[in-house]
Amino acid sequence: MPHLRKDPLSDRWVIYAEGREQRPNEFERVERRRADARCPFCVGHEEDTPPAIAVYRSVAATDASNGDGWTVRVVPNKYPALLASGCADPMQSGIYVLCDAVGAHEVIVETPRHVASLTQLTPEEARLLMQAYCDRIRALQTQPGIKYALVFKNVGPEAGASLEHAHSQIVGTPMVPSEVQRELVACRRLYRQHKQCFFCHVIQDELDHRLRLAAESDRFAAVCPYASRTPFELWVLPRQHQSHFERQSPDQLEELAHFLQRTIGLLESQHTQFAYNYFLHTAPFDTAPLRHYHWHIEVFPRLTTTAGFEWGAGYYINPVPPEQAAAVLRSNGTDPT
Amino acid sequence: MPHLRKDPLSDRWVIYAEGREQRPNEFERVERRRADARCPFCVGHEEDTPPAIAVYRSVAATDASNGDGWTVRVVPNKYPALLASGCADPMQSGIYVLCDAVGAHEVIVETPRHVASLTQLTPEEARLLMQAYCDRIRALQTQPGIKYALVFKNVGPEAGASLEHAHSQIVGTPMVPSEVQRELVACRRLYRQHKQCFFCHVIQDELDHRLRLAAESDRFAAVCPYASRTPFELWVLPRQHQSHFERQSPDQLEELAHFLQRTIGLLESQHTQFAYNYFLHTAPFDTAPLRHYHWHIEVFPRLTTTAGFEWGAGYYINPVPPEQAAAVLRSNGTDPT
Repeated sequence: MPHLRKDPLSDRWVIYAEGREQRPNEFERVERRRADARCPFCVGHEEDTPPAIAVYRSVAATDASNGDGWTVRVVPNKYPALLASGCADPMQSGIYVLCDAVGAHEVIVETPRHVASLTQLTPEEARLLMQAYCDRIRALQTQPGIKYALVFKNVGPEAGASLEHAHSQIVGTPMVPSEVQRELVACRRLYRQHKQCFFCHVIQDELDHRLRLAAESDRFAAVCPYASRTPFELWVLPRQHQSHFERQSPDQLEELAHFLQRTIGLLESQHTQFAYNYFLHTAPFDTAPLRHYHWHIEVFPRLTTTAGFEWGAGYYINPVPPEQAAAVLRSNGTDPT
Repeated sequence: MPHLRKDPLSDRWVIYAEGREQRPNEFERVERRRADARCPFCVGHEEDTPPAIAVYRSVAATDASNGDGWTVRVVPNKYPALLASGCADPMQSGIYVLCDAVGAHEVIVETPRHVASLTQLTPEEARLLMQAYCDRIRALQTQPGIKYALVFKNVGPEAGASLEHAHSQIVGTPMVPSEVQRELVACRRLYRQHKQCFFCHVIQDELDHRLRLAAESDRFAAVCPYASRTPFELWVLPRQHQSHFERQSPDQLEELAHFLQRTIGLLESQHTQFAYNYFLHTAPFDTAPLRHYHWHIEVFPRLTTTAGFEWGAGYYINPVPPEQAAAVLRSNGTDPT
């Protein structure tokens, strides 16, 4: 039975999901997936995944050959880390704490076509993907036992992707993840100290001095953070203060789709077979709009390998300062629009 | 100029060490190192590294062909993350905090022979390696600006190793690493709650019930921790309470050398080309013997890839419960001695 355990020393949770070792490439050495493997996410292979939870259709879709005409498709993860049933309350067992693995684990197939990169999506596919992120966060808010929804994306085997076809994932968890909790606490402290949202300060600082600014649009900025852990780490941020991702307007979502494609494109233009993760940090479900928290997407390139020092110290070694990374990206960053 | 920056949201430090991108395989895709590359750690190639800081010779060494007759050799890292000079006091810069990259970064070559695994060391090489860990921790305690020494080992490219020849590293840092600091705080809290050292409790519990015990000797135990982040994660612990690694007796060190080789051997017998990190967590320099802290070596196998969920949530997904991992290791664990 899958369950969660809490490490007494770090308070981090570990999900025990035994079925997941049957995933396509678990435990295999890192290698690009064979091109001749049947892709469960391609149009026409819908029976290879569990039935869809939600389907998005392009307003212009008229192509009858495309299965049921989907453009973006949300399905349950076939090898879920968390399940819909169980009790979300942690239990004590001696000095240890555990919890049923209550939650949700969904996959968002970003396009019916077999393409690997977000930059290969049509503008309409990218827009519907952002819409799906919003809708799924809102839907998981109504599901019992789920306290947070983490949207993330793995690209390339070095980043933990087991399939090449462009897809995102969303995990609903029975507690607010420790990384988000830690940010919330720090942001509250920094707000008290500086009477300003930390991220608003960063955005203003980078727009003023452009030291670590990689790209900007009317409503968004991409910044290499001051203490980037890896070369070319990036934050994508709304320029106007906003704590909850899922409260964006349709216009804003459309601009975000375009801006995210452009930003990932800048990174891809610097690195061949660019492996990365991105994840969305937004305010927890049960909060009103927060003055001290600012949603953002963290892009985490997998250009270096975390080794014993990083795991043992919790520190990082980065050979490329964010100022240098941002300058490289800016020099490529003439907006084609 | 290399320096450290503190992330305002997580309080974790990042070391900016620009020279390190010239290391042998930085930014290359993961692949086993070519067999025909000249190894700077092999006997006879001593001029490929900076001059030795310390040299250990086997008491039985009579082989004149072996350079100056070394068995274990400590050299400065050619691409150091931290340097001997600078000011160890953090400085404020606007809302950010930075610090000179003061410290030390040493490499311990574990054998003159080109072997990849700790299990291929002779008993004498392994003993001298443990002695070198102790001696270098003690030596760095006397160096100005250094507050902690982290011993670690990277094996295999998936674990961040850039060279195959068996070697360890030791980094002296200008502050106690956040992972160690976090453990110290948690251990103090757990000691107050349970009137016992957390690790002593774990050892007793595992020796009594053997649920997660992988191996034991007179003075040591190897345990798969309750909330293992990865399959086959292991802690190597002294059975008698001891907070400072460097205060071990010669007898204890010799037994540790043997026990560590045996434990790594159990893991290698389960996995071909087994990539892993291990690191030593010991009490900080400036502490007297601590009742609440217990030194330990954490072995961190690289059998799974951390992906967007792990980075974004700070949680882990583990397909193999520690009880199962320990049972597998125990079944192989007939001590050959």
